[in-house]
Amino acid sequence: MSKKIRKIGVMTSGGDAPGMNAAIRAVVRACAYYHTECVGFYRGFQGMIEGDYVTLNARSVRNIITYGGTMLQSARSKEFRTREGRAKAAEKLKEAEVDAMILIGGDGTFKGGLALSEEHGVPCIGVPGTIDNDIAGTNYTIGYDTALNTVVEAIDKIRDTASSHNRLFFVEVMGRDAGFIALNSGIGAGAEEILIPEEDLGLERLLNSLERSRRSGKTSSIVVVSEGDKIGKNVFELAEYVKENLPYYDAKVTVLGHIQRGGRPTCFDRVLASRLCVKAVELLMDGKRDMMVGIINNEIKATGIREALQTEHKVNKDLLRISDILST
Amino acid sequence: MSKKIRKIGVMTSGGDAPGMNAAIRAVVRACAYYHTECVGFYRGFQGMIEGDYVTLNARSVRNIITYGGTMLQSARSKEFRTREGRAKAAEKLKEAEVDAMILIGGDGTFKGGLALSEEHGVPCIGVPGTIDNDIAGTNYTIGYDTALNTVVEAIDKIRDTASSHNRLFFVEVMGRDAGFIALNSGIGAGAEEILIPEEDLGLERLLNSLERSRRSGKTSSIVVVSEGDKIGKNVFELAEYVKENLPYYDAKVTVLGHIQRGGRPTCFDRVLASRLCVKAVELLMDGKRDMMVGIINNEIKATGIREALQTEHKVNKDLLRISDILST
Amino acid sequence: MSKKIRKIGVMTSGGDAPGMNAAIRAVVRACAYYHTECVGFYRGFQGMIEGDYVTLNARSVRNIITYGGTMLQSARSKEFRTREGRAKAAEKLKEAEVDAMILIGGDGTFKGGLALSEEHGVPCIGVPGTIDNDIAGTNYTIGYDTALNTVVEAIDKIRDTASSHNRLFFVEVMGRDAGFIALNSGIGAGAEEILIPEEDLGLERLLNSLERSRRSGKTSSIVVVSEGDKIGKNVFELAEYVKENLPYYDAKVTVLGHIQRGGRPTCFDRVLASRLCVKAVELLMDGKRDMMVGIINNEIKATGIREALQTEHKVNKDLLRISDILST
Amino acid sequence: MSKKIRKIGVMTSGGDAPGMNAAIRAVVRACAYYHTECVGFYRGFQGMIEGDYVTLNARSVRNIITYGGTMLQSARSKEFRTREGRAKAAEKLKEAEVDAMILIGGDGTFKGGLALSEEHGVPCIGVPGTIDNDIAGTNYTIGYDTALNTVVEAIDKIRDTASSHNRLFFVEVMGRDAGFIALNSGIGAGAEEILIPEEDLGLERLLNSLERSRRSGKTSSIVVVSEGDKIGKNVFELAEYVKENLPYYDAKVTVLGHIQRGGRPTCFDRVLASRLCVKAVELLMDGKRDMMVGIINNEIKATGIREALQTEHKVNKDLLRISDILST
Repeated sequence: MSKKIRKIGVMTSGGDAPGMNAAIRAVVRACAYYHTECVGFYRGFQGMIEGDYVTLNARSVRNIITYGGTMLQSARSKEFRTREGRAKAAEKLKEAEVDAMILIGGDGTFKGGLALSEEHGVPCIGVPGTIDNDIAGTNYTIGYDTALNTVVEAIDKIRDTASSHNRLFFVEVMGRDAGFIALNSGIGAGAEEILIPEEDLGLERLLNSLERSRRSGKTSSIVVVSEGDKIGKNVFELAEYVKENLPYYDAKVTVLGHIQRGGRPTCFDRVLASRLCVKAVELLMDGKRDMMVGIINNEIKATGIREALQTEHKVNKDLLRISDILST
Repeated sequence: MSKKIRKIGVMTSGGDAPGMNAAIRAVVRACAYYHTECVGFYRGFQGMIEGDYVTLNARSVRNIITYGGTMLQSARSKEFRTREGRAKAAEKLKEAEVDAMILIGGDGTFKGGLALSEEHGVPCIGVPGTIDNDIAGTNYTIGYDTALNTVVEAIDKIRDTASSHNRLFFVEVMGRDAGFIALNSGIGAGAEEILIPEEDLGLERLLNSLERSRRSGKTSSIVVVSEGDKIGKNVFELAEYVKENLPYYDAKVTVLGHIQRGGRPTCFDRVLASRLCVKAVELLMDGKRDMMVGIINNEIKATGIREALQTEHKVNKDLLRISDILST
Repeated sequence: MSKKIRKIGVMTSGGDAPGMNAAIRAVVRACAYYHTECVGFYRGFQGMIEGDYVTLNARSVRNIITYGGTMLQSARSKEFRTREGRAKAAEKLKEAEVDAMILIGGDGTFKGGLALSEEHGVPCIGVPGTIDNDIAGTNYTIGYDTALNTVVEAIDKIRDTASSHNRLFFVEVMGRDAGFIALNSGIGAGAEEILIPEEDLGLERLLNSLERSRRSGKTSSIVVVSEGDKIGKNVFELAEYVKENLPYYDAKVTVLGHIQRGGRPTCFDRVLASRLCVKAVELLMDGKRDMMVGIINNEIKATGIREALQTEHKVNKDLLRISDILST
Repeated sequence: MSKKIRKIGVMTSGGDAPGMNAAIRAVVRACAYYHTECVGFYRGFQGMIEGDYVTLNARSVRNIITYGGTMLQSARSKEFRTREGRAKAAEKLKEAEVDAMILIGGDGTFKGGLALSEEHGVPCIGVPGTIDNDIAGTNYTIGYDTALNTVVEAIDKIRDTASSHNRLFFVEVMGRDAGFIALNSGIGAGAEEILIPEEDLGLERLLNSLERSRRSGKTSSIVVVSEGDKIGKNVFELAEYVKENLPYYDAKVTVLGHIQRGGRPTCFDRVLASRLCVKAVELLMDGKRDMMVGIINNEIKATGIREALQTEHKVNKDLLRISDILST
């Protein structure tokens, strides 16, 4: 039988994502509701190793639902990747009398939690928080919807100037291994072409498509490029290549970069974070461990972390077809 | 065997919703892709009766994906509710050589389409476009996500001033018969209480909750009220009642009103509109009729309009529980 | 010779305005720069009377430049309007060893500061912070630019739905005694008519103008109404009156209300607040008192508070002419 | 005596700026008000040379006040820089019976207008439209306020992630020759350092300041860099240099790029564009020529174009001092 949970720790780890504060708030408030103590570790596993934490109550998280970033900060910890580092972390948890952890982050965070559980018996629940949406066991990760809107809003602005000048713009968005952001923001922004790491459509095809666009009278175009696209060129080389081959195009590049990680979370991300984290606390209260919470068909579901880590969250390639049809 | 579709008509009807333009664009572009003509009727069924339409091609819908409202305008038509009105409309469709219709709107719009199909044999496909999210056969309607964000953004602003002044705010949001907007925006905005038409929680409970909030040290509060709440009082009466019973509260009212219908659509609504409308065109090309398109578990599905109209899209009342936990 | 200033108090008073936090930050940071202590009083004069204050240093105001509202909260104090109340406040200032005050607010706040200076010898500097822009001695008050953008953004949304439905919208904005917000947001939003308290244009003229609009083919219209308009009717009565006289119009009303006070401040308001408050601290360090700071022709200027209070900041009525020309 | 003006041409030229559409609308509506015809030339001087224009009436500019970009498009024309090109343009104006031109753009645009007036007797009025604010004869140019807000909003997002990760961010903003955008957005965003082309503060000073920041406990910092900064390094080299010398900093770079040119104009830019362009039309109706319109101390003023071109609009370097004080 599992030990009664008297104190829960929470942390955010990996790349930060909008909605992480809403998630922390929900963990803290749910703990208060279930009369369980709650502490927050700073800078992810690194703060755990250093025993750097703070007691959190309902008032500590006042109004943070509206803010981007994470009040607990985030970091990547090299030390935690060693057995010694994890032992130190477990020791600190014990000292702090923390009975279980809720880990908000991505794949790497979940793996860390699993190791902590297996090696030191700390019950862990993972909450998917990353703008990349590249985690199985959930349709959406916290921060993804906000990032999509940030990208679409930026491309809307670029389109204003593109249309005013008959220009071709290459816009690089985040997503080194997964095309979720590129694919959905590309459709949302009405991009003419979308390049994602999951599918190498070839340079030839891109040139043909741009030429066809132009012949049909389009004088400005937007191409959304995932930072990890497989076309073998980075976004600047791509623009150069197109300029050389289609000299009538005045091709420009914009790399959206870190603005995609920030900003006030959308309603979707706030509600998602709230629902996932109430569930995470309830799972721990019910004696569950080594699970992640996710939203599937609009219901909150728990999946084994191990299972989730072994599954790939694949982009819906049918969206490429939709994009093709709509950029007619 | 069904007649080959050579020309598709599209219209928007009922209350307008952000993303309707993205939907029109997707219908037009998908028609172009499938080498089918496309015309747009102005002001919903009323324009159909008056034969008021325009030919639409890929260029006509350039850039409209980013705009709120609907370029085809919307209206409610009394005349169409009569058998004569519908006969006139069918006559005009015939004159315009329109073989099938795509109807973007809510319940009333779908009923109109069904009548047109049954009485005059016009194949119709319904696309759920309304901020209220009160349609079965889909998890989300077009415009709902944008409206949620508009509401949350407005309440964030109200919270700034509420926190600065120790005030209690009653914020009325749309949703005469359904609490979707109130429930989700209320959780997203971190409201202390949410009143929805589906559940009468009683005035007593509201007073107790506000008093408890205050005793726990909260000095400002937000109560989100659905315009159709069942508590037996409108939002102004509610505020008066609270002021009389809890005189230490300086209760204010804000009715968000029509700003909830406008604004640039979110990425979610644009992608949803795009996917639904490509599917709507493809259903017609495949000889289907009297169906609506929806998104279920992130997949686009078709449901019979009649079936959808007979089913109620219910709010997830578990969200009230989540709200209670989080306003601890 | 004036006493050396070792500790400065700061407070926000009256209606809150976006940019008040940026103003507090600038006072605090300028104090740190000039090696002067700084304390903040909560809830304006009321907190002063209660001796409710906090020591502020450069870290206390971290990141608040981006937030709406005021971290020191605001209130109106009846007690301070009495001689006894002010004596109590002066006593508390003495106890706290506060040598001078910076008061961020409107007319009423400035009057309070003047009384404190005259009756108890406390040097005061006023900083104009109010969305209403109704203070002489400055072209712009802190919060006004943000409020204008909030209003324009809201009317843009209303226009989306107005255009989609051929509707006439009456939009009530703040400004009981001054038409600054109505006039500038009305022009910015492209309103067809603007009603301000400074000028009663008459109902007849409004009806004529709306009728002319309609005859020229306009099917939707926006009328911006200052809450204190002199036309003798409130905005709901106005809409009824128009509906009775111009029955073809489907007139709707939206009262924007308190969303106008909140929101992240614009760049203009942040820079304005920063410049004004550095100057306010420097005036005190230079032995000045009973002045207000303002921006005139893009330069920061000091004016005697008494002089400013005796002068009226008038709206530029030429803007009504501009509005007439542009709603052609 | 000057010839009666029966038809006015309008065009946008140079880099596009938010508010150009509001400016076009105001020209068109003011022409309608004064019973003067109005035509719009596409793509600036290039469209003039090609005789590519459209007749504009009050309805043509409906709702465009809310949109970024320019409906008349913009371009730079090499041909117009030759005497032959200008002769061709003048010929086309004559054919179109255009009596006078209103030119919306920057310095280059104004020079072109002057040449057209001197060589071919076409009365021209310049309207300052550029995000760079680098034109004398006006406190503000159309588009500048919107660009500032776009930059501040982007940096707010970057600060979310910077704070979450203890990072140093270099953010490059527009302004090759003038630091207006960097200086004002830097103060508005609470940047720790601001580098502008007008003042080389030296690398040494930057390192010292960052080191001091860090010692005082700041763990994240933003440095705003004008694209034309005089420090002798581009923004990527700068980041490398800092990383080498202050290895504890994880320095990142974001180049905001073309998003700064787009977006819905702020209220300020819309009102400014409206007032300037009504005045521009009125100047022509009064027989004036070769002037530019500007806003000075909140009043609309006309200045000779030649005089304006010979004067430099200087940034207020006192703002650097303000920035230093506030980043204490």
